[in-house]
Amino acid sequence: MKTTFQSFDDVSDSSTCAPRLAALRAELAARGLTGLLVPRADEHQSEYVPKRAERLSWLTAFTGSAGIAAVLKDKAALFIDGRYTLQAAAQTDTALFEPRDLIAEGPGKWLEANAPKSGKIGYDPWLHTQSAIEPLAANVEKAGATLVACPSNPLDAVWSDQPEAPSAKALPHAFNLAGETAESKRRRIAEEAKAKGAAALVLTMPDSICWLFNIRGRDLPHTPFALAFAILAADGSADLFIDARKTSPELLAHLGQAVRLHAYTDFAPALDALKGKTVAADPNTAAAAIFARLEKAGAKLLRLADPCQLAKACKNPVEVEGMRKAHIRDGVAMAKFLCWLSREAPKGGLDEIAAAEKLEAIRATSEYLADLSFDSISAASEHAALPHYRVTRSSCLPIKRDAIYLIDSGGQYPDGTTDITRTVIVGTPTGEMKDRFTRVLLGHIALATAKFPEGTMGVQLDAFARRPLWQAGLDYDHGTGHGVGAFLSVHEGPQNISKRPVAQALKPGMVISNEPGYYKAGAYGIRIENLVVVRECADPGERKMLEFETITLAPIDLDLVEPLLMSEEEINWLNAYHERVRETLSPLLDGETQRWLAHATRLVQEESP
Amino acid sequence: MKTTFQSFDDVSDSSTCAPRLAALRAELAARGLTGLLVPRADEHQSEYVPKRAERLSWLTAFTGSAGIAAVLKDKAALFIDGRYTLQAAAQTDTALFEPRDLIAEGPGKWLEANAPKSGKIGYDPWLHTQSAIEPLAANVEKAGATLVACPSNPLDAVWSDQPEAPSAKALPHAFNLAGETAESKRRRIAEEAKAKGAAALVLTMPDSICWLFNIRGRDLPHTPFALAFAILAADGSADLFIDARKTSPELLAHLGQAVRLHAYTDFAPALDALKGKTVAADPNTAAAAIFARLEKAGAKLLRLADPCQLAKACKNPVEVEGMRKAHIRDGVAMAKFLCWLSREAPKGGLDEIAAAEKLEAIRATSEYLADLSFDSISAASEHAALPHYRVTRSSCLPIKRDAIYLIDSGGQYPDGTTDITRTVIVGTPTGEMKDRFTRVLLGHIALATAKFPEGTMGVQLDAFARRPLWQAGLDYDHGTGHGVGAFLSVHEGPQNISKRPVAQALKPGMVISNEPGYYKAGAYGIRIENLVVVRECADPGERKMLEFETITLAPIDLDLVEPLLMSEEEINWLNAYHERVRETLSPLLDGETQRWLAHATRLVQEESP
Repeated sequence: MKTTFQSFDDVSDSSTCAPRLAALRAELAARGLTGLLVPRADEHQSEYVPKRAERLSWLTAFTGSAGIAAVLKDKAALFIDGRYTLQAAAQTDTALFEPRDLIAEGPGKWLEANAPKSGKIGYDPWLHTQSAIEPLAANVEKAGATLVACPSNPLDAVWSDQPEAPSAKALPHAFNLAGETAESKRRRIAEEAKAKGAAALVLTMPDSICWLFNIRGRDLPHTPFALAFAILAADGSADLFIDARKTSPELLAHLGQAVRLHAYTDFAPALDALKGKTVAADPNTAAAAIFARLEKAGAKLLRLADPCQLAKACKNPVEVEGMRKAHIRDGVAMAKFLCWLSREAPKGGLDEIAAAEKLEAIRATSEYLADLSFDSISAASEHAALPHYRVTRSSCLPIKRDAIYLIDSGGQYPDGTTDITRTVIVGTPTGEMKDRFTRVLLGHIALATAKFPEGTMGVQLDAFARRPLWQAGLDYDHGTGHGVGAFLSVHEGPQNISKRPVAQALKPGMVISNEPGYYKAGAYGIRIENLVVVRECADPGERKMLEFETITLAPIDLDLVEPLLMSEEEINWLNAYHERVRETLSPLLDGETQRWLAHATRLVQEESP
Repeated sequence: MKTTFQSFDDVSDSSTCAPRLAALRAELAARGLTGLLVPRADEHQSEYVPKRAERLSWLTAFTGSAGIAAVLKDKAALFIDGRYTLQAAAQTDTALFEPRDLIAEGPGKWLEANAPKSGKIGYDPWLHTQSAIEPLAANVEKAGATLVACPSNPLDAVWSDQPEAPSAKALPHAFNLAGETAESKRRRIAEEAKAKGAAALVLTMPDSICWLFNIRGRDLPHTPFALAFAILAADGSADLFIDARKTSPELLAHLGQAVRLHAYTDFAPALDALKGKTVAADPNTAAAAIFARLEKAGAKLLRLADPCQLAKACKNPVEVEGMRKAHIRDGVAMAKFLCWLSREAPKGGLDEIAAAEKLEAIRATSEYLADLSFDSISAASEHAALPHYRVTRSSCLPIKRDAIYLIDSGGQYPDGTTDITRTVIVGTPTGEMKDRFTRVLLGHIALATAKFPEGTMGVQLDAFARRPLWQAGLDYDHGTGHGVGAFLSVHEGPQNISKRPVAQALKPGMVISNEPGYYKAGAYGIRIENLVVVRECADPGERKMLEFETITLAPIDLDLVEPLLMSEEEINWLNAYHERVRETLSPLLDGETQRWLAHATRLVQEESP
């Protein structure tokens, strides 16, 4: 079976580390540098970067989505967070790159202890945010060394076959999908920045720019970004800096007269023209190079959280309706896949790649699928215990009887982005599996049914999803919910639901995942993930309350549910959800899948112990 | 009935505002000042201050526990938080002091808009923390004015009958109550400060100092502080700055040789001797005067959260056992009071003051009572809807039939501090009252029974207590839990349980209140408050989990409970709690109270709708 949107090749090869590191060190020496920081980042600081920006993986062979290497003359370290401890150690050459804790230590403390006195540690100022570079510079200074901005990236000089920057056509995102004209968005964001005192707003985040200008692109796998920079003026007009190859007459017509197009490379020089003006930029997302250039140009800097992020996160009714439609389409694909899996898996012979390929093929039968929203996590047995597992030809496990299979996947449709996890048992589960699955489900239901006042942050709700596990001495080591874009990033801010206090209230229109889990290392893993939309309660009581509308539609495996652990209300929720799944999807399904779905969504009866 | 520890007199008289403000303005003019900040604070920045430091109430007639006035030549404002909006407007002369929002605006923004150009705004640097004064100075500068530290407080110069500073004897807090010697505490706190690089640690918080030196005092009503300053050296020896009248041969013997005693007034000069040393002080609690003096003296300042606060909050097993004993003693008093109330209230004729007096009299029959832990909140009918109500002769309401009565009170015992709220119905409740009371009880039970992993903060648990209200569109506008000291402050940090993210994990030994509520303005209010101790779960499952042990022992009014709203587990918790209350207290009670308690703690049966 051929898949279009994902590959299962082993992309990492640690044997390349030694020659590449040697080449880099030679280049650093030639430039008079004692070291270099190599982050996993591009000029736009999103989680998703083009191949050209995969410098960290080129150098260290570590392919995770977050990390940074610090290279000195005689030692080097690779900093990763807890998610990637095992993966980094397995992928990189640990004799060359010592894996270190990104959160507890980070490159700052490490350089403070290891940078040589009078050393010059280079960094590419386009690959670090202003907020990140300031404490790093202080750390390096404490070691008696200096952090030096490189005019060009030394690694790029030795990466001979570095891919070109992407140049795919940018596409208009139609009004019937966006629900608001770009002009209206630009006007209200400009008003917001103006109210804070800004004469111009520098925008660098790809999702902010795609949202603001109602454009999408194909510069990256899975995430429909058109990479660009923008400067929004106080009158709502804007300068958009984008590779000319990405434009088209259609795009120009769509952008209109108030958007002045410039070459991508003209962005930095354009900052000089802001001399004397109050210019807003987000220190947590905009590159240090931008702050340095604005300062040098004599602009008055205003540090301001990118206002597009919150505006974009609060979907309008058209976008919410698009998300619902995309989830019905995606639910049809999931039902067909789960039906196929329930028929084929017990026969034996299936493996993780075959299942992922089948699901992609089914999704691709939708005429609307633009891409998957990420590489599917297709995880059998003990692989399901790895929340960020990615199957490759060398890791691929068979899907066995009496074992758990977990599939976390999603699609990018023009009207919405989906992200769903289902965990199923092939054959018969153990009592422990049913206990754990039901606790995860109870947490999922507690969050799905929560009502909460305006102003409530995700950190206040997170424990609802964990309590059934906590009461049994169990927990899971990831967040419960991340924001999801509307045909944009499958992970988006500023909201989340996790143990970390993030000072962002949940607001109507925000889409967020509800995905508690349980992981037993070396044995099995469980996750139940639906997307929900924040909305106002119809019946608010004394106070205006918010609640979640679940928009993901696919059955939850009843063979893993223990009704004895559930209250009447919880069973009622499960039955009502399954009824909605069945009634929404059945008319769109073939006969076999309809029959399977009728059984998969059968009524659960309350049981007395 | 005579009460020793509380008075019900109306203490506030707005007619004094005009002459006092005029006198203050004359003094400011004589000193060349255009304005003055008058905070509700003393030199130690705790919530509890001696009468001498009640400058804000002397000037504005506002008697709340938090606030600040800003006085200019032609206008003045009184800044209070949401708790005190109504009270401030009622107490002060609003023609002279405009009530303003302390949180949304604060004196900083107000002075930025109102301070005259080139004006000199005075402040007493002993009454503001370093963290508070820095942004204030920036605000005043934006107005083109200057914030000026006053060498002596201008208000004190015109407050002719200002009370003396307290000089009550400081008392040793015995080892069998403290559970750890002062020497051991000093050694480990000194180690902690040393590990952060400090050669000396300046301590200013009264509860930190009383805890560290194992002393208590009677400088304030309700809170057993001996007011003093201290400097802890890296070797664990210390300088204690305390009014000589507070000392005694017994105290000196208790403190030992490693504690060098000095006059209270010698504290500031002693800071000069720290020249060249790295000195730690807490910018959020230590006075700006201390930072200024250390800087002038040439000390190297290290901003460090007062390490005694967390150490003190985590009670040792002896302190926890003392808290348990104090709560049994206090539970006996509460049972006697509630029994008396249930007999007398239906007859009519009782009022809020009579009830508060009776409860104090009963508590005072304990030979151990040192003080009440705060002025009782004795609130009938609509007064119960005011969470911070304090009854006075002029506000006192009768306790009526078929109405709610709420009593929030506590005792200071040498082995522990108590804080309990009970809400009772005299006669018959409405269905709404039962619904609301039961929802508050369900929230209380959800928090009381929570298990949670190490590292969990209060903000993550807060919603457990609110969910039963949220689901009905209801909420309450105060935190769910505050820390409580062991024969120290009834409100202590650093932990809490509230909507506000406070980055302090709950740790074993912490005592915290569990007090959800519901308030219907103008009608009635409900609060159920027990104290709990954080402890490790005996049966931790896969992970080390923590849980709460409820230590408050008094019946919860079953006439307000609607069992139809409760699950079997919740009813089981209520019955088990009541059984523990009955079995613990009954042997210590008279026959009448025993009989009443047996009924008050009767078994609740699960009911089917």
